[in-house]
Amino acid sequence: MPALVPGARETDASASFTASGVVTLTTDFGLADPYVGIVHGVVLSRAPNARIVDLCHAVPPQDVARAAYFLAHAQEYFPRGTVHVAVVDPGVGSQRRILVAVDRDSAYLAPDNGLLNAVLSSSARVRALDVERFALPNQSRTFHGRDVFAPAAAAIATGLDPIAAGVGPEFALESTRAERARSIGDRVDAAVLFADHFGNLILDVRGDELLPEPSAWCASIGGRDVLVRGTYADASPGELVALVDSFGALEIAVRDGHAAAHLGLGPGDRVTLRRIR
Amino acid sequence: MPALVPGARETDASASFTASGVVTLTTDFGLADPYVGIVHGVVLSRAPNARIVDLCHAVPPQDVARAAYFLAHAQEYFPRGTVHVAVVDPGVGSQRRILVAVDRDSAYLAPDNGLLNAVLSSSARVRALDVERFALPNQSRTFHGRDVFAPAAAAIATGLDPIAAGVGPEFALESTRAERARSIGDRVDAAVLFADHFGNLILDVRGDELLPEPSAWCASIGGRDVLVRGTYADASPGELVALVDSFGALEIAVRDGHAAAHLGLGPGDRVTLRRIR
Amino acid sequence: MPALVPGARETDASASFTASGVVTLTTDFGLADPYVGIVHGVVLSRAPNARIVDLCHAVPPQDVARAAYFLAHAQEYFPRGTVHVAVVDPGVGSQRRILVAVDRDSAYLAPDNGLLNAVLSSSARVRALDVERFALPNQSRTFHGRDVFAPAAAAIATGLDPIAAGVGPEFALESTRAERARSIGDRVDAAVLFADHFGNLILDVRGDELLPEPSAWCASIGGRDVLVRGTYADASPGELVALVDSFGALEIAVRDGHAAAHLGLGPGDRVTLRRIR
Repeated sequence: MPALVPGARETDASASFTASGVVTLTTDFGLADPYVGIVHGVVLSRAPNARIVDLCHAVPPQDVARAAYFLAHAQEYFPRGTVHVAVVDPGVGSQRRILVAVDRDSAYLAPDNGLLNAVLSSSARVRALDVERFALPNQSRTFHGRDVFAPAAAAIATGLDPIAAGVGPEFALESTRAERARSIGDRVDAAVLFADHFGNLILDVRGDELLPEPSAWCASIGGRDVLVRGTYADASPGELVALVDSFGALEIAVRDGHAAAHLGLGPGDRVTLRRIR
Repeated sequence: MPALVPGARETDASASFTASGVVTLTTDFGLADPYVGIVHGVVLSRAPNARIVDLCHAVPPQDVARAAYFLAHAQEYFPRGTVHVAVVDPGVGSQRRILVAVDRDSAYLAPDNGLLNAVLSSSARVRALDVERFALPNQSRTFHGRDVFAPAAAAIATGLDPIAAGVGPEFALESTRAERARSIGDRVDAAVLFADHFGNLILDVRGDELLPEPSAWCASIGGRDVLVRGTYADASPGELVALVDSFGALEIAVRDGHAAAHLGLGPGDRVTLRRIR
Repeated sequence: MPALVPGARETDASASFTASGVVTLTTDFGLADPYVGIVHGVVLSRAPNARIVDLCHAVPPQDVARAAYFLAHAQEYFPRGTVHVAVVDPGVGSQRRILVAVDRDSAYLAPDNGLLNAVLSSSARVRALDVERFALPNQSRTFHGRDVFAPAAAAIATGLDPIAAGVGPEFALESTRAERARSIGDRVDAAVLFADHFGNLILDVRGDELLPEPSAWCASIGGRDVLVRGTYADASPGELVALVDSFGALEIAVRDGHAAAHLGLGPGDRVTLRRIR
């Protein structure tokens, strides 16, 4: 899972960081408990002027890939100098490393479990966090969001050079971020990544992979051809529609309805895409 | 649905706006995805000192009336100079307009789908938003909360005159906001608007409509008369109680219980109110 | 329930307060309605620079003990000078008092229903809040979070001496906060307090009560002995594990799983702990 390739990367002009004071949190903590609020407390204790944004705390427990997907698609909408903290961390308290990275003017903190591989570009600078430097006294072995990530994020948000927050040599991280279109021919067997709050089914195919243009394609669902269109309102209420969503992914929706419930589809289910012209 | 009446309303002393930097968000986005966090990111990218308040993101999908009800009852509790953004937007990406308004010292941004009619007073100043002026580059057709509403809100929160954010002539919006008591005689066939988090059933009747005073009335539920009282603690644990809630609406509750589950009632169900003295 | 013992406690060097501007909110309001957002609005109207942290709004309705547990374990992670507001308030609108307290450099506001007894230390300074001094005009009898707690919190967050926010004599509150280890022998019949978002079962026994050390103990569950270990990763995926959680409580978990669902256990259920060496 780590997919880290040690390597010399001591300087890289594309990765710089000047703290804006904004800190985002992406976790699987949920909001049923005070865990998220406590992380805010630790950050504010050490960075009183930080602006903390809850990016998402409803990542399904231990779903590292979902957290990566969310953060990868969200990071560009935040100010330069943002510290992005992602804590989906089944290995908490074990010997797993915590990574600190700088990429495209932002800093990142996450467990070394593959999460950042799907978020960072190949020009990111990455190091193992110097955990003992930041850990709260009496750190627990089960809540590093509070005891390690929060104080480290606060230090970076108040001006510490993120790379200086690490120890050991820098790493060249093997980016798995989908940045370029695959060539996918005239037919794709796509998979559902997840259903969002509206029940829209997000597929593992991006609109820019559907050549010459998305509207030349349709999705086959239950024996019916569902055309790729521009937006929900291009369909009639209750009608199935495929479209390129706001993250650039192909999505199956029901106008004013809940596609996941309507179709009985969820993560891992297959949807065939077919070029029709 | 739009209910907009074009008309000259170039000046109105009652509608002025000086930005406080506070921005509220009311949406049907839910918190399962990073959509809300991304909107925060866009606002903070352009208005670094904005104070963003999540008014509610659990509006049922596409339930424009619920969003309007929430915002109408919440707006008076925010500072003068607040920018209220409401995005429940089944027509996103279509030709529907986005409205910008100033009313009672606050600014409003919402799709032109009737939402603001139930929120704004008759003295509001309203215009169609100049979408192209604010839209992010490569705006999507499905997430205008991120691509249009957020940058427009940031501009207004940092000092842009909201009316100057619009294009075309101002409109005189037909307010449907319930501001005065109807005369309802000695008997009312009321409807449940929705159940809140506590299971309290909110009715479409306001306490100031129950003359000479709410305590002169009772609700007939399942053949029993439930008296209108002052607060939950006026009932015994487990007992049904009717009362005027904190928004001024009549509500049916169970002391320390969940009235919606207890009675099996929900949106649209009828409750008869009867004057008893 | 109140457990307040009137007494003279006019000065106490251990309880002082200088506002940091941070305000935390712990309620049973949920996030389905705009109630929490409205409280933010009232605070920001009167304390424009306040930093409001939502500690938890998913306290089960009327579950005063849960709110107390959450706040007791969270408060130490917030800056000195924080105002902690806890509103789980089945007696709202009745003659119940609202308490204002200073303890360990922080201020507290909560209904007089036992909530603070489990949060405050025995050196806290406590007074009845001067409700009429802070209440919004036309205060409701059902939403004191908005009408009383929020304006009082704003006043304290902007510099009002919290004790001066009270009326009448100070009280010596009878602290029920578990601060010292009981002596529990070689066997304990523990109870489940609640299951957290991950399904981890939090017990009413603290790790420092398990002498000579937690790893000398095991939990008997369904006829099996579950060892107390250091962290989740010490178990195999799907395996039951007992551990001392980040709040210092003993917890039963399933590695990468949901113990509450797996075991069919919930609040009040019993788990026997046994010393094995």
